[in-house]
Amino acid sequence: MEEIGSIVLQTPSGELLQKTADTLRFLSADQVQRANSGHPGMPMGAAEIAAVLLTKLKIDPRDDKWPNRDRFILSGGHASSLLYSMLFLQGFLELEDLKNFRQLGSRTPGHPEYGQTPGVDASTGPLGSGIGMAVGMATAERILADTYNTPKFDVMDHFTYVLAGDGCLMEGISYEAMSLAGHLGLGRLIMIYDANGISIDGGIDTTFTENVGARANAMGWQVIEVDGHDLAAISEAIDQARDDKSRPSFIIARTVIARGSPNKAGKASSHGAPLGVEELAAAKAARNWPAEDFHLPSEVAAYFDVRRGEWLAFRQEWNQVFSQYEKKHHSLCRELRRVLAGELPKQWKNAVAAFGTEKAWSTRAAGGQIINRLGAVIPELIGGSADLTPANLTEIKSGNNPEFVNKGLFQGRNLHFGVREHAMGCFVNGVALHGGFIPFSATFLVFHDYMRSALRLASLMRLRSVFVYTHDSFMVGEDGPTHQPVEHLAALRAIPRLHVWRPADANETIYAWQAALERRDGPSAICLSRQELPVLDRTRLAQARETLKGMYILEPEKEGQAEILIIASGADIHLALAAAVALRERGLSVRTASAPCLEAFKLQAEGYRKKLLPRRLRKRLVIEAGIVQGWEGILGDSGIFIGLEDFGHSGKPAAVAEKLGFTTAAILERIDCSGW
Amino acid sequence: MEEIGSIVLQTPSGELLQKTADTLRFLSADQVQRANSGHPGMPMGAAEIAAVLLTKLKIDPRDDKWPNRDRFILSGGHASSLLYSMLFLQGFLELEDLKNFRQLGSRTPGHPEYGQTPGVDASTGPLGSGIGMAVGMATAERILADTYNTPKFDVMDHFTYVLAGDGCLMEGISYEAMSLAGHLGLGRLIMIYDANGISIDGGIDTTFTENVGARANAMGWQVIEVDGHDLAAISEAIDQARDDKSRPSFIIARTVIARGSPNKAGKASSHGAPLGVEELAAAKAARNWPAEDFHLPSEVAAYFDVRRGEWLAFRQEWNQVFSQYEKKHHSLCRELRRVLAGELPKQWKNAVAAFGTEKAWSTRAAGGQIINRLGAVIPELIGGSADLTPANLTEIKSGNNPEFVNKGLFQGRNLHFGVREHAMGCFVNGVALHGGFIPFSATFLVFHDYMRSALRLASLMRLRSVFVYTHDSFMVGEDGPTHQPVEHLAALRAIPRLHVWRPADANETIYAWQAALERRDGPSAICLSRQELPVLDRTRLAQARETLKGMYILEPEKEGQAEILIIASGADIHLALAAAVALRERGLSVRTASAPCLEAFKLQAEGYRKKLLPRRLRKRLVIEAGIVQGWEGILGDSGIFIGLEDFGHSGKPAAVAEKLGFTTAAILERIDCSGW
Repeated sequence: MEEIGSIVLQTPSGELLQKTADTLRFLSADQVQRANSGHPGMPMGAAEIAAVLLTKLKIDPRDDKWPNRDRFILSGGHASSLLYSMLFLQGFLELEDLKNFRQLGSRTPGHPEYGQTPGVDASTGPLGSGIGMAVGMATAERILADTYNTPKFDVMDHFTYVLAGDGCLMEGISYEAMSLAGHLGLGRLIMIYDANGISIDGGIDTTFTENVGARANAMGWQVIEVDGHDLAAISEAIDQARDDKSRPSFIIARTVIARGSPNKAGKASSHGAPLGVEELAAAKAARNWPAEDFHLPSEVAAYFDVRRGEWLAFRQEWNQVFSQYEKKHHSLCRELRRVLAGELPKQWKNAVAAFGTEKAWSTRAAGGQIINRLGAVIPELIGGSADLTPANLTEIKSGNNPEFVNKGLFQGRNLHFGVREHAMGCFVNGVALHGGFIPFSATFLVFHDYMRSALRLASLMRLRSVFVYTHDSFMVGEDGPTHQPVEHLAALRAIPRLHVWRPADANETIYAWQAALERRDGPSAICLSRQELPVLDRTRLAQARETLKGMYILEPEKEGQAEILIIASGADIHLALAAAVALRERGLSVRTASAPCLEAFKLQAEGYRKKLLPRRLRKRLVIEAGIVQGWEGILGDSGIFIGLEDFGHSGKPAAVAEKLGFTTAAILERIDCSGW
Repeated sequence: MEEIGSIVLQTPSGELLQKTADTLRFLSADQVQRANSGHPGMPMGAAEIAAVLLTKLKIDPRDDKWPNRDRFILSGGHASSLLYSMLFLQGFLELEDLKNFRQLGSRTPGHPEYGQTPGVDASTGPLGSGIGMAVGMATAERILADTYNTPKFDVMDHFTYVLAGDGCLMEGISYEAMSLAGHLGLGRLIMIYDANGISIDGGIDTTFTENVGARANAMGWQVIEVDGHDLAAISEAIDQARDDKSRPSFIIARTVIARGSPNKAGKASSHGAPLGVEELAAAKAARNWPAEDFHLPSEVAAYFDVRRGEWLAFRQEWNQVFSQYEKKHHSLCRELRRVLAGELPKQWKNAVAAFGTEKAWSTRAAGGQIINRLGAVIPELIGGSADLTPANLTEIKSGNNPEFVNKGLFQGRNLHFGVREHAMGCFVNGVALHGGFIPFSATFLVFHDYMRSALRLASLMRLRSVFVYTHDSFMVGEDGPTHQPVEHLAALRAIPRLHVWRPADANETIYAWQAALERRDGPSAICLSRQELPVLDRTRLAQARETLKGMYILEPEKEGQAEILIIASGADIHLALAAAVALRERGLSVRTASAPCLEAFKLQAEGYRKKLLPRRLRKRLVIEAGIVQGWEGILGDSGIFIGLEDFGHSGKPAAVAEKLGFTTAAILERIDCSGW
């Protein structure tokens, strides 16, 4: 019996629960068999875990966006058929959906896709990433709870469950995320490890022999080990996990992959290919299961009819609590509603005044100022750095909650991610998925390499994650090639749906942040300079708000029709303006455009784009401290690119710039040799 | 006293050793101060560790490529000044080099750069990666030892040392690599953890509170904890580590960052900025050290004069052993010399016969055939997959040593990397750095995201690492967007010096492998199809060896001057040929080019490149199952690109292809709408 407030949920008998497990087992295997594609092993092995989870999870089967629902992340996303079977019993999916498993356009794609299937809390497939997202979600829950709950009202108190396999736990991201979760003492985070001992290459004894329990224990987790087919033991383990509110829990559930399959259980061959018609029939027979496809026993159907009613009742109770909360704590509740809806506070844009030209700013320092100004009025802006806080300058010291989040101290907004870029990226995505926040991360641009999969997932899921990257060029200087981005702007721009900002000065940085915050359908990367840059004089040049267009004419030609168009991004705009002066001294008519975001530019109306890149203006000079990839379309057949083709060098920034041809003199020479 | 064969090395007195430590301490701090840039904290804190290491390391100060030297990887590459101080005492660097620390063109760049500084065994800076490379090196040593040592001759028996800090150990790569090393039981791998408890953001108690010793223990390492300033204790710990040949050893050396600095010791402020002239003077005074810059006590100088003599004597002894070995085991020794020189065996190219057209091959299956044929004649070709062996098809079942490497079983050539892509990439680089092998890795193309930093390091270090990536397009099908590469070919091509191959059929795959093996100055990525592809009929089309040129005319125009040039890579060439047929039916003259490697093409003579991309032939149609980035320069102002702009879809491969416009009909429609 499971109590939730005053609502009493029925615990099914062991027999019924086992029938539920077998329902999940064979619904999953049937999906894979029907599609003739997919992974039956884990779903069949983890069916008992899933059945118990269905008795524990608190959800609203009519509202998969209910903010206080328990989150469930299937980190081993290849077991998607199991998740879909669960969602079917929960009421989110129809039997028809299961029959369309892995078909184009279905709600049951090969791996769980956030936004494509109701009830799916995260896209998973890249192994281990789900654990990182779960850590972010569990932290988000705690910050919301500590910020919005009151002594009488716990409006936020859900659990975050994650089901992971051997593959997930071999990935570095899993260690990073678990180490962080243990440090933060995320008591409402419960990971169930489907320990079937099998991965694609065979038994994990060939490569993964660490003591996983001892490892989790070393990281500060409660470790519980059970037979993953013992329904009562799994249930008790989850209860024990929920009881310990000071530590995350790691339940090692020893399972047999493809349990029920007479000839493939316990074998790697069951991992990623359908059982085959005969073997599936044999499995059903062995477990006294009707041979028919997609069989749903009437008692299981009846139980979930009741269960859905209980879920709804629970949601209604929460609604009642919430309306009382709303009456007692009106403004707090209004704020909570706002942040959960992802809406920015009114007049937030007024928080940041324009930067004057009297002082030079690195864009990272400007960025730090901006998030502090924004942070004062946008409490839901939270984030941190992968141990580069004093370099990224991303600490928010403003607002009501300027502390660093730590164990038992969740009223903060800053996070020490440690040197864990990948976990940081997944964490930020988990926070964005959870809702209630606009999360950001920060590290050096070159180290986005360590978290690239998280950027891709943010883009795929269309999350409002903001990724700050400072030290955005060889102007890093002395730290040398390992720290100097070369291919990184191109590599970021390559990711579909990601908006990549590289502001030219402090004021462009304001608008880059504004665009990132206003964007509701995808993530943004904001790439900032280490070195100081003059603040562009907007009395003489175009207005800074033009930044939002992604590319704009910063300085039009002075007289006559423009003969040369110079385009640059970020810090390189200052070299562009200097080159323009030198070219004008040669009597040429030069136009200079700033290109802080090529993706935003591509979204402008065709007329605007053509105006910026007129067909007749073929002498185009692009300057960017990176590779040409991504610029060639703009350069066209006659353009000149001032950039890099190889790695950088360790040396004083100015010396490196000189060596790489980032001087006005070198640019003029390039033009002289070009045949323009 | 340290015995090496019959040579007896002198152990310095405690006083002299402490003086050596202080020499390292202040030479390092002086470098940083002189450069006014760098990281004095770790060098000053780890000076005692480094001093003891200098008494343990077995090197040849006149030959930093001696194959049996102990390897030393400074994983925390920001402590480069400490490494340079060590290399100065070893005799690889001059005092003048230390004075030019971090200056453009010096031998002492900001982070250790392999190839730029004698005695540097790996480029480090991206944290944790050094650990992964060390694991690869230590494995390479064992495989060579088990393959080439004989009962009387241990020609290969060195140790691999790695010095890592808190930052390294927070990174996911460190866990992956340590888990693998523990599994393999790499007894000659010794990691010293400079546990100073400080990272850039402050004390690690803010974020990194796991029990690091328990973690290493859980992974199968011997764990030893010492005071990192106690010279005798460090020495004993290293001896204990060397004595345990069945497990890697993890020495936790508790240190004080910036030890010796009166006001900055133990503080994060010492991590990444010079101490300042006054503080450095105060530090020297506090340790009774002369105030002069770059002071080298005469007794330390004298000791290392003797030490270098001992090192040379040891090398000479090894040389003698090696010549006896050569006499007794002539052919084995010749083989060892060959593999250490990185030279391929004679006639190796004959091992692979051309594939006939009677059978369709996925290029991954062809790749599997090819490495098996090559593996039969190239014993130094070793590698494996990140738990996708049956999908990547990279197991070598041929040759004398077709086993999987495992603990105590190092005579193999296949590796089970586990689901550890990043460690795999670093491991492969470590093997390449070690010498004696041509290593390869394998995973799905989309998961190169997890190991991108390793690709960059391989390129930066110009290693002959081969990265196999199968499942190279949306033709993955049902697994859906998380498994379908979109931006990945572009992202790979973005990395300077990396050659990215995407062969069109089985025979192009032969030449892709040939190019990768013959390339001595950088890594190659080989991207292969999941789906079967016809073998192109070379009686009718251009010869497959043209592949080596990176781009070649596969099928010239049939009659008249070519009006349309179609270029495609990999599997998409087959669609290109079909489109050409359809266009010819419209009476157009079409030329089709295969572009398996744009980087190899860029290295061709200008005349060849112009011939392939004639200025007059502006109607260029490029087909590639990826983004346009990287192709725009070839497309020019009039080209049409058939590719992707967004993520893929889960569905049957043919259905996904249809949806994404990868059909002849869709291509014709695109042309019709183009205004060509």
